[in-house]
Parts: sequence; C-alpha cells; structure tokens
Amino acid sequence: MIVICSIIKLPNHQIIKSRRMTFELTQEYLDQLKEAIADTNEQFLKSQVEELLPQDIAAILQELDVKEAKYIFSLFDNKQQAAIISELDENFRVEFLEQFSSDEIAEYINQIDSDDAADILNEQEDAEAIIELIEDKDEEKAKDIKDLLHYDHDCAGGLMQKELLRANLNWTVEKCVEEMRIQSRKVGKIFSVYVVDDHNKLLGRVSVKKMLLAEENCLISEIYESDLISVEANMSAEEVADLMKKYDLVAVPVINIQGKLLGRITIDDIVDVITEKAEIDMQVMSGITAQVEEDDSVWALTKSRLPWLLIGMLGGMAGAKYMGLYEDFISLIPAMAFFIPLITATGGNVGIQASSLIVQSLARDNYYNNFSFYRMGKGFLVALINGIAIATIVFGFNFLLGQELKLSVVVSIALFSVVILSSLMGTITPLILDRFGINPAVASGPFITTMNDLLGLAIYFAVAGALYGI
Amino acid sequence: MIVICSIIKLPNHQIIKSRRMTFELTQEYLDQLKEAIADTNEQFLKSQVEELLPQDIAAILQELDVKEAKYIFSLFDNKQQAAIISELDENFRVEFLEQFSSDEIAEYINQIDSDDAADILNEQEDAEAIIELIEDKDEEKAKDIKDLLHYDHDCAGGLMQKELLRANLNWTVEKCVEEMRIQSRKVGKIFSVYVVDDHNKLLGRVSVKKMLLAEENCLISEIYESDLISVEANMSAEEVADLMKKYDLVAVPVINIQGKLLGRITIDDIVDVITEKAEIDMQVMSGITAQVEEDDSVWALTKSRLPWLLIGMLGGMAGAKYMGLYEDFISLIPAMAFFIPLITATGGNVGIQASSLIVQSLARDNYYNNFSFYRMGKGFLVALINGIAIATIVFGFNFLLGQELKLSVVVSIALFSVVILSSLMGTITPLILDRFGINPAVASGPFITTMNDLLGLAIYFAVAGALYGI
Repeated sequence: MIVICSIIKLPNHQIIKSRRMTFELTQEYLDQLKEAIADTNEQFLKSQVEELLPQDIAAILQELDVKEAKYIFSLFDNKQQAAIISELDENFRVEFLEQFSSDEIAEYINQIDSDDAADILNEQEDAEAIIELIEDKDEEKAKDIKDLLHYDHDCAGGLMQKELLRANLNWTVEKCVEEMRIQSRKVGKIFSVYVVDDHNKLLGRVSVKKMLLAEENCLISEIYESDLISVEANMSAEEVADLMKKYDLVAVPVINIQGKLLGRITIDDIVDVITEKAEIDMQVMSGITAQVEEDDSVWALTKSRLPWLLIGMLGGMAGAKYMGLYEDFISLIPAMAFFIPLITATGGNVGIQASSLIVQSLARDNYYNNFSFYRMGKGFLVALINGIAIATIVFGFNFLLGQELKLSVVVSIALFSVVILSSLMGTITPLILDRFGINPAVASGPFITTMNDLLGLAIYFAVAGALYGI
Repeated sequence: MIVICSIIKLPNHQIIKSRRMTFELTQEYLDQLKEAIADTNEQFLKSQVEELLPQDIAAILQELDVKEAKYIFSLFDNKQQAAIISELDENFRVEFLEQFSSDEIAEYINQIDSDDAADILNEQEDAEAIIELIEDKDEEKAKDIKDLLHYDHDCAGGLMQKELLRANLNWTVEKCVEEMRIQSRKVGKIFSVYVVDDHNKLLGRVSVKKMLLAEENCLISEIYESDLISVEANMSAEEVADLMKKYDLVAVPVINIQGKLLGRITIDDIVDVITEKAEIDMQVMSGITAQVEEDDSVWALTKSRLPWLLIGMLGGMAGAKYMGLYEDFISLIPAMAFFIPLITATGGNVGIQASSLIVQSLARDNYYNNFSFYRMGKGFLVALINGIAIATIVFGFNFLLGQELKLSVVVSIALFSVVILSSLMGTITPLILDRFGINPAVASGPFITTMNDLLGLAIYFAVAGALYGI
C-alpha cells in the first residue's frame, strides 16, 4: 500500500484529496521504481512519487544507489528538493550531495530552516565556500547559519533555529499582526510571538490565540505574558529536553547571558533528542560503547563492541585464576562445577534488574535525588523474597534430582547470598557512577554482569569452603 | 535554588518578572515547608510556592504526606488546583483525591482538558457518580469525557482530547476568527484549525498563520490545506507516535471510520508515549516483566522480577544437568571448570550486543523491514573479528599463566565458536520474536543470556570432548 488518497466529491463539485494513510516502503515498490528509472519512464515515476511527503521520498532515495536517487530527486521542484535534503540521514546525505556543485548546495540550503542548514553545513567539507555563496543570495540567512555553527550540537544553541516571530513591547496588536505577515514568510511553525524590548532583551511572549482575541489597538505590553521559561544557549540538550517534557512546552526561546533573544528550540528537535538518548542508553546497557547503527561500517561496529567484550574477558580470566585456588577441591567434588553457571547467571540477572530501576529513576527529571533508607529497605525486602524463592526451589530440584545434600545446601546458601549482594551492587553502582558524572546506564550492562560473576564465584567457593571445611 | 526571578526595571517603570531558571526540589526546601505547615505559617508557605508552576507543586506534594499536601494545595485557587491535580502521578493522585468529596472532584475535573479528565476518572472508583455531577455543571464536557472513557489508553482514541478548533468549509475568515474567539476559551494550545463539512467530516486544516495572512472576506474553502495526515481512533499509540515523529507533527486529528472528526492528539502526550516505550523496552531488556517503578509496592516489584529469575534458574539447572554428563572428565581435568564463567559471560555479552542493534532497527519507524543477506554478512564479519581477537588474547594469557596447552586450545576454539554462534542467535532471535508479534526487546535480556549460557556450555564441552577424545 503506497498512499491511499480518497477522492471525495463534495456537493459543490470540489475535489478533495485527503491523505489518510501514510507511506510504507516495500521491496516490490522499490523494484518498480528501479525498473522505471532504468527505462527513464518519467511519467510513471512522477505518478508514483509526486503525492509523497519529503520524509517518504528521503526514505526511498536512501534505498537506491546515488545515481538512481539523483534521477528521482530531479523530478521535484527546487523547494521540494530542499525539503527532501533536510530529511536525509547524515551518512547518505554526504554521499548524495557530492553529486552537486557548491552553488547548487547553497541554493538548497538557502531554503532550509537555519538549524537544519547548520547541521548540513557541518557535514560538508567546503562549508565556508558554501556559506559565501549563501551570503550572495541572502546575507541575513548566511549570518544566522554562521552564528549557529559556533555551537556544539548537544547544547541549546546547537538545537535552536534563528527563525521566529519577534514583537516589540511597544507595538500595537495591529502593528504586530502586520509585522507577523512579513516575518512569518520565513518561519515554519509559529507557536508564539516573543516579546522583546528595544535592545532585543527577551521579556515574554504573546500566544497567537491571545493576539486573535485582542483588540487591534491594544498594546503588546498590555497583553503579553512575562512568566516565560527560556533557556541559555549553553544549556545541555538533555536538560532542555527534560524541561520541555516536564512543562509540556512546544517551543522554548533561547537567550544569551545578557538575556537577549537568540533563537528558539521546537519540540520536533527535542523528540529527536529524547529518542537518541533512549537509544544511547540502550546501547550502553548492551555493552556497546559508541553510538552505532546497523548500517555503520564493520570497523565502526567492531570498535564499538570489542571494549566491553575485553572487559568481560578480563573478568572471566580473573574468575579462572581465582578458581585455580580450588583446583584440588573441584577434582574431589566435580559437581561443584555444575552450578557455576547457575550462580553467575542469577547474580547477573538480579544485578541488572536492580540497577535498571535505579537508572530509570535517575533519568527522570522529577527524580527526587536523595539517598533514601526507605527505598533501600524496600529493595532489600524484594531481594530477600526473590532470594528465598530461588534458593528454595533450587534446593527442591536438587533433592528431586538426588544431588548430594551438603552440596545442595552450599548451592542454595550461595544463591541466596548472591541474590542479596548482587541486588545491593545493582542498587549502589549506578548511584556511584551518577555521582561521578558517568552515565549510570553503564551499570546495567556488562559492567555489573562482570562484577557479579566474580562476586558470585567468590561467595560460592567461600560457602563451599566453610561447609566442606577446607 | 528555587526560582530565580530577575526583577528588571524598565524605562517606563514597569516591573517585569522573567522566569529564567526552573525549580529544583531539595531536602532543605522540603524541611522548611514541613516546618511551616506544622506552624500553619500560611504567609511563608505562600511566598515559597506561589511563583511555582503546577508541575513543580505536584512534585512537592508527592514528597509530603497526604495531610500536609492538602494544606499546601488549599493555598491555591480553584483553577490552579485543577492544574496541579492533572500533574500528579497516578498512585499519589488516587490517595490524594480520597480526601475530597465527589462534588469537589467533579469541580476540578470540569476544569481539566478532556483527555486528562478521562485519565483521572479512569482511576476513580465512583467515576459514574462524578460524571453525573459534571453533567450538572457542563453537559457537553460530561459527554466528551464519557466518549473518551470508551477507548483503551494505548490507542489514538485514548490519547486524544476533544478540545480543538473546528471551522466549517463555507465560513469566511472573519466568521472563523469570530468562532475561534468563542471556541478557543476551552482549548489549551491551538496549533491549527480543522476544517469540516456540514456533517463534521474532516476535510483539512488551516494554520493560524495562514488565517492571519488571509483577507477577512476570504472563504475557508479557498485557503485550507486538504493534504492532511489524520489517524483513526483505533490506531495504536505507538503507531501514532511513530507517525508524529516521522512527519514532525505537533498535533494530529483523530477521525472515526466514516472520516468524522473526533478529537486531536497533541505532541506532549506523544512525548510521554515515546518516553514510556523507551522505559518499557529498558525494563524488558533488564528482565523485568511488568512496567514498575521504584515507588511501587514490594509485592509488585517482586512479581515483576521473579519470572525471569526463575527462567534463568531453569537454564542454570539444565546446564548443571548437562555438565553432569562430564563429571568424571571434570574430576580428571578440574581446570576445565575454571573457564566456564568466561565462556558463558562472553556468549551473553556478544548475544546482547548483537540483539540490541537489531531491536533498535526494528523499533525505528523507517526501518526497511526486509531480511538482508548483506546485513547478516556484515554482522558475521564483526563477530569473526571479535571472535578472533578474544580467542587470541585469551590464548596469550593462558600461555603466560602457564596453562596446559591442550586446554588453552580448547578454551580458545570454544570462545571463538561461542562468539560466532551467540552473535547469530542475537541477530535471529529478535527477528523471530518480532515476526510472532512479541516485543523483540525480550531478546536483549535474560532470555538471550540464558540461551547463550547453555549454548556456550554445549560448545565448550563438545570441543573439549573432541580434543581430549572422550
């Protein structure tokens, strides 16, 4: 199914298209396109893609080779092309734009919002040449983009766009609406009009709703809201995301230290920040160090995985060395070895369960960041119940399987202790990492597993040593 | 730091407060409040909380006991109280509202947007009585809420609110602005005006921007955009989130099967859906079955953790049983046992790394959902490099530590095989789970670890068996 356009005939014979369903990319559809490209069947291609939104076209281009992509791209007008470019994934975009001259790229970037424009320029090697070309077309735009290029991409300044509506405190509503007609040509979505004084200091905002409801000769200073949340340009992207999430904001103005209005951040960019943060946490938890995607190179993928595998390996070797101390003992009671995986796996599972809840609480902006004996006590109680349950069930199993009684007791005592201690480790480790400014999600991954493997082995052999009297 | 309000004296002697920083809850601040509550020091309390936003007040109330919370709550006017209630966490809200009569609750709910109102009513035992009381105050509101109560909370209908701006196709812009003045009193944020025909069928939208720019006597039918993405009420919340994320939408209209306009979903609710989905995935990966929070009861926490611990335990017992077959062998070469944790941990780590990348690709809306030999091949190559690296390094270690050569060879061959096979398992398992409609994140947790523990043991002893000739 590509796009279902339901053509509805209205009483007054207008034809209305309503885009109800969204596009889904299939292999069949791609094959059709490729064939049509090979045949340069422009008419068919146009009929297939002209109804699509830039996001969908970008998704299609990324599944084609660069030459094919360029052919489909050429079917759109300049404005649509600019929109498509800003929707491409970075990796593909760099490769795709290599086919165009700096002048063509400048032409496209000139039509893209300043924040996306800066992102694209950041990927280009000859960014300065392109900016100079933009300068010839639109000096102000070039200045805006240059300003944005100064900021790191993970702070408020790197997320903001320069395009926004700005009203002077002393304007009337009528004057403001007039100005908005001019300013809004360059602004995608409006949300609100920011109110500034003569020195561009941010004072507050007027919602479009309020403006619609106000009398024309009313002064902005009479109707604006001064109670406004703004962020400074150097605030971290994550903090901005937490703020907008907590206060349900769809846009937030960005100011400098002097309180002057620099730009605004819109919620769609924040949604991306939130998604990316969740993906990074998930990768950290999985023992993947850098943010990689399935489509990255073999080398990038390997590099991101090997470090934690090596740490796990060192843990395993340390465990082997430790068990070496008990060589004679294992030789005497080889059944000791049977339960090693049970002990280490249980410790790992319990530790990760405990740590992930703490990591999640830490990630919440409203987490009440205080060590609490009540919470610790509750965690201990949960561990106690789980520990008793598992130790008992395993003891039952061992009894049924006819395992030697003494060893069964050793295994169950060790399991119980491992559950309690791993739970404690899982609770404390993320809190400590967070205190030292390390992403606590690290504690939900191979780190805690490796630690708990060693802890489990130590407990198991210590208990066995005590009960067997070595 | 509580709230920094910078008081700026303007030339015209207006005093402007600008809320720059947001609120941070500290133990010290809470202690001050508690003391003031005990002393019924109303003036001090007011000075402390009156500048805060509802989200912050809700966060404070949740850290107090119910009586204390009610005292602070009573310092606000009715409208603010309603806003605070809609910001409370569900668990606390249920407890808190028990202190109020149905009539008082109805009074509050009447002032809350229909979607939040329905959520609150869903938590209340005497929901029907409260709706009847709302009916006495505002019949339309009661009807809206009743409508919303029919929907599951994880579909579009359960996320939408009834409040929106609606314009008839045949209105002039002037008439529309007039109507908006009336309608907008009930609508929080506007975003766009939805255009319908005489039978409330959704035809398109007009942005406020366009309305501001149009002539007053212009017809809505001349300026509206018919190219509109809408969702049906039974679409899943996750699909709505993917859609809004992909197309950068801040609001999306909800229609029924006949295409009639039912309500709209705003981006703030979608941000919550995205965050919740990420949290659930993280919990699933950590082997926690139900969505729980640190603040839930001991029993809820235990219940959510035990199932996967038991599955891990069964895996461990199966492993023990399997190794039982090699009892004599371990007794002869007890050093075999030393490397069991190394083998199982490496298998677990590799499996989780591989699966989490697949899970992430599956979670992306733009994932090109096709089995690809190229991708599989790349994954195999990464595993090959990692496998060779780890096997070689461990062999080196064992050589330096003076481990017996034959055992060193067994361990390294087993490690290499485990890396390859665990990587394969980690790649295929989430794809299979996804095909069967099971959340593939399950494959990044204890499930894959347990499977890989067993796989690792089987390989290790099989290799040893082959090389030692048993």
